[in-house]
Parts: sequence; structure tokens; C-alpha cells
Amino acid sequence: MQSIIEATYHVRSDAQSIADRARAIAVEQSVEMPLDAIDDAYVNAEIVGRVRELRDLGDGTFAVRIALAAATVGNDAGQLINMLFGNTSIHDDVVLHDVEFADDLVRGFGGPRHGLAGLRQRVGATRRALTCAALKPQGLPAEKLAALALRFAQGGIDYIKDDHGLADQAYSPFADRVAAVTAALRRHGTATRYVPSLSGDLDALRTQIAVAKDAGIDTVMVAPMIAGLANAHRLMRDNPGMAFLAHPSLVGSRIAPPLLFGKLFRMLGADAVVYPNYGGRFGYSPETCRALARAALADWHGLKPCVPTPAGGMTPERVAEMLDFYGADIMLLIGGGLLAARDRLIEETSAFVAAVKGHRYG
Amino acid sequence: MQSIIEATYHVRSDAQSIADRARAIAVEQSVEMPLDAIDDAYVNAEIVGRVRELRDLGDGTFAVRIALAAATVGNDAGQLINMLFGNTSIHDDVVLHDVEFADDLVRGFGGPRHGLAGLRQRVGATRRALTCAALKPQGLPAEKLAALALRFAQGGIDYIKDDHGLADQAYSPFADRVAAVTAALRRHGTATRYVPSLSGDLDALRTQIAVAKDAGIDTVMVAPMIAGLANAHRLMRDNPGMAFLAHPSLVGSRIAPPLLFGKLFRMLGADAVVYPNYGGRFGYSPETCRALARAALADWHGLKPCVPTPAGGMTPERVAEMLDFYGADIMLLIGGGLLAARDRLIEETSAFVAAVKGHRYG
Repeated sequence: MQSIIEATYHVRSDAQSIADRARAIAVEQSVEMPLDAIDDAYVNAEIVGRVRELRDLGDGTFAVRIALAAATVGNDAGQLINMLFGNTSIHDDVVLHDVEFADDLVRGFGGPRHGLAGLRQRVGATRRALTCAALKPQGLPAEKLAALALRFAQGGIDYIKDDHGLADQAYSPFADRVAAVTAALRRHGTATRYVPSLSGDLDALRTQIAVAKDAGIDTVMVAPMIAGLANAHRLMRDNPGMAFLAHPSLVGSRIAPPLLFGKLFRMLGADAVVYPNYGGRFGYSPETCRALARAALADWHGLKPCVPTPAGGMTPERVAEMLDFYGADIMLLIGGGLLAARDRLIEETSAFVAAVKGHRYG
Repeated sequence: MQSIIEATYHVRSDAQSIADRARAIAVEQSVEMPLDAIDDAYVNAEIVGRVRELRDLGDGTFAVRIALAAATVGNDAGQLINMLFGNTSIHDDVVLHDVEFADDLVRGFGGPRHGLAGLRQRVGATRRALTCAALKPQGLPAEKLAALALRFAQGGIDYIKDDHGLADQAYSPFADRVAAVTAALRRHGTATRYVPSLSGDLDALRTQIAVAKDAGIDTVMVAPMIAGLANAHRLMRDNPGMAFLAHPSLVGSRIAPPLLFGKLFRMLGADAVVYPNYGGRFGYSPETCRALARAALADWHGLKPCVPTPAGGMTPERVAEMLDFYGADIMLLIGGGLLAARDRLIEETSAFVAAVKGHRYG
């Protein structure tokens, strides 16, 4: 096998069955048929998946490392996830844990255009952590969302992302929302960036990104697992001036977060990845979050660093703890935790921003 | 709340926590913020998710029925899955079990254009079960795949689908494969349909479907979870003459199969749904498979019936058992189990076809 992908799966299994399970995954994710019925020399030598390593993790699971042919993927992100985890996703005792790729495959996908430095530069930050708030709830009309965005900007926030539930609904159509929010921020005069959430099929995503561009927006959000990885990738490649936040909607729990956010979404071109922080509403552990953040920022095949953006039940009180945990190469996203301040939203946002700017790293 | 969606989740929980968990899901899948910070009357009345029912299932899980506003979805299939399961997919103790939709929402998506009757009509079948084989392994050049397709056609198979690993790879480009296979079937003269697998972003899907149409193909396959539901839906609506098989790649294990295949994929427009049969390589139970098949065929909001297509490690020996289990409103897909016959492929295919045609239903 020449240009390869090495995928590691964690499989719940007993020691007696694991060798068979591993071979079955290698076949499932490559030729998906009985090997003794394959008489083509190229397929046997280059396409059939190969088990490279089995390792007992001691907790009832085994790490299974399998080599897959990069030729099966090409430059199609949908086909990439299809070959890595398509049918095997149906086995609920298997997790796609990590993947090593040939260098040309990663570089071919391209990675972030802006990354950490680009997101800092947009808002005039140099080395500090970035701040982000969320426009919600869905159901509000565009003007109310714009008034809310203005208050976040008055508090000095760097980025204001749409709630991922905001789409192109009748009560707040995408174009109206973009017009209202950008007008409010422009009147205020601020470096604060509005980051609208894109939704729909690739046509709709393109229409929305054109609307955003026309309004002077340079950062948008998309949920790659909803859009389909190939469409998210297409959108990111076709819009080099735009920075992209990737949202975790529909990521499920069976692809390890450091891989999915830190490698796969980053390969597509995500400049920042929003993910559920430890100690919030979701179950990611501190270790998972640390590994995710490290992967997203790691020196990896020449890609720009992608900004880890922990979220999901964060509060202003946790700023110091999170900055000590993650360091300054991070964007802190507080959604409901700021909105809960209601009449004191501007003050609470200012305090959040001040805490980030004034933090002394231990 | 006026036009509603009622989603039922199965949640692993203890009795003490379930009411809080249920309310948390209702909030997560609607406004995703503290309710006491919402002062908009419309949002409170129409958008905030409502817990309608809690039921102890007696096995450590609870059924939680939640009403969500259809206004948050519009006609966007991506937004539909986003509102049903986007963030909650990250909680690995929650399964999206079932959903009831307002009638206009289901009819708005449209459902199958051809369905069971259309797929039978294409191959001249009246009331019998349909037969399907799979072209594989990937890695073969187009001409070898065409030779294989010819042998399946000589055996009298109804449909020949691509392995879902076949994409637009250098060793068998989509256009070359379609040209070679359709030429082979045309020379043979047969009602057998070649069903190529579409891949890539929406642009690529459209290009491939145009190539297929030009070659006289009237049935194609797409994996909705890879393409993104909104793109799969767009493709199905824009190509009314084409019948669609939906492939299960990347479906995972956290959306109940009867819902995902029998309702969601069918709503988008899938004329047939390929899924892993019980007793094969995957873990679906007979009860799950029966519920899936019933849902796909059910009289439901006026949609055409969608053909259940059990697969995944099936063999010719199981034909009688499967037909007795499912009845005749089914397509039986045998992939590797036919290819294993090697030199006797035509005979084995003929025997499979004869067993289906000759089956006496109990």
C-alpha cells in the first residue's frame, strides 16, 4: 500500500474476538466483501485495509490500528469520512479514535486560511485570548437580535456568533438579520465581529455567504456534520477571505473529539472549532478538552492553528480557571451565561472582557 | 405552540434526575439559554420546547416526549435534524427515538416520487420482492466492474448498486464507470438497473446525476448523512424522474433506525432505504428491522411507500427466511454473499432470483 491513512479504532471486545473484529473493520472500511473472492492484484495489494496493530487498553477495549488506501478518498471530505467510519459508525461498540494521514492528503484539503492569528488580527488582539458571545434565543425578530448584538459590542466583546438554531426562519430571515445586526454594529463603530450561522443546502449556504460578504462580514459559522463535510469544505475553499467557525451540531459521541475537531474540521478549513467544554452541560472530560485544544493548535502538516472555542454552559466566573487550563491561545464563548445578566448585560460582558484581558497566566 | 413537532427521546437516567434532564433537552433543542432571561412573549409561547410526557421504560431509561416549534425548521432538512438532535447528539445517554410531525411539514418535504410501485415498475415486477446486488470491490477499473455487472444481469438481478465506497476515484472515475456499466447492460438487453453511488459536495452530486441521466440511468444511490440531509433533499426534489436509494453510511447508532430510515430519509424522498439486516454483520435486532420496514411502508401523511432494503452480510440461503419475515414488499440486497460464488456468480445470482420469484409466502 503506497499512500496510506492509518486509522485507530477503539473497540469494546474480549481478547478472543479482537483479532477477528479488527480484520472485519479493515474489510468493512475498504473492500467490504469476502477477501477470498478478490482476484485483482492491485486491489489486494493497494486497497484492502490492513490491520497494523492491536493493543489491549486494559478497560475492556482494544486499540486497533488499520491502514487504508488514500487512493479511495481523493480530495473529497465526504468520501474521507465514508472510508474512515461510514459503515463502522453503525457498530455502537466502536469509536473512531485517531487518524494519521499522508502529508499530501492533509495539505490537499488545505486547512484554515486565517486561523488563530487571523481571528486575533480581525479584532485588534495580539497575544491574548479572544471573547465570544451568542445571539439568542431563536424566535426573536431581527431588530431585537440587533439590539442585543449592540449591547454585546458596547461591552467590548470580540465576536458575536448566532445561536446555531438561527437559520433562515420566517421570524428572522437570514438577510434581515445580517442587515440589522451589521447596521447596529456599524453605527456603534467597533471591531466587534458578527458571525452569522449558515444553514441549508450548498446553494443556500452560498447565497447566505454572499449576503454576509455584501454586508461586510468576514467571519461566519457552519456546522460541518449538518452541511455534510464535502459541502463545508467546498464553502471554505471557495471563500478564502472568510474565516469560519465550525459548530458541533450532530457530531454525536462516536468520533473522538480531538480527532473530529482538532484534525478533521481543521483540515477542511475551520479557523475556530466550537466544542462543549468540561464542567458544562456536556460530558467531555478535561483530558478530552485538553487533547482537542492541543490537536487544533498543533504544528501539523503545515496547517495554520485552529482556535479552540470551548462553550456549552460556561459562565464569567470560570474565566480565570479556563485561561489557566487552556492558556491564551483560545476563544472563550459564553452564551446563556451572559444573557442571564439581563439588564446588566453590558456590564457583565465588560467584566468578562476585562477578566480575559487582565488575566495573569500562572 | 401552534404547528408542532413532537420528538421522543430515550434517556438513560435515574428517576430523581429525569424531570430536569427532560427540561434541559427541551431547552437545548429550542432556545438553548436560561428561560428566566427570555422576556419575549412570542418566544415563550411558541418557540421554547415543552416537555409533554415522561415515561419510565423500566430498563434504566425514560421516554421523554418534547414539543418543538415547526417554525424553527421551515423546509430545511438540515435545520430539521439540527433542531431534533443537533446538540443533544453529543449526550451519549440520549437516543432520538421517534418523531411525530405536523402534516404540512411532512408533505412539504415531499417524500418518494416513485417508491415501491415505481421501483417494481422499472424492472417489470408486479407484486414480488425485488432483488439487488452490489458492484465491488472498490479499486477495480471500470471495465472489470462492467464485466461483473453483466454477469449479475445474466443472472437476472433487478438492481445492481455500486458499493458505497465507489466514488469518483482515479482507478474508476464515476463517468467511466457509468459509461462502461451501462454499455455492458445495454449490449446484453435487460431490464436490470444499474444504480451508481453519488458522492461529493452538491456540485459533484449534480454533475454525477447529469452524467447518469445522460447514460439513461433512472435510479441512483446517495448516503444522506454524508451528503448532508439538506443536500440529499435538494437532489431528490430537483430530479423527479430519478429514483433514489438511501445508503446508511455514517448513520451511527443514536437515532432509532425506524425513525431515521422509515420517516426521515423517506420524507426527503428516498424511494428505498438500505439498512443492516438482523443476523448479519451489524447489531440491529429483528424487532428493529421489522419496525423500520413497517415505518418505511406505512400509510403516513400521504407519502408513497419507501422500499425496505435489508443488507449487510446477507446470503442466498436466507432468502426464504427473510421473505417470510418481511413479506413481499421488500428489496433483498446480497453483496459479498453473491460475489463469494466467484466462477459460479451467474448461477448463484440466478438461484437467488429464482428463490425470490418462486417463494410461497406462509
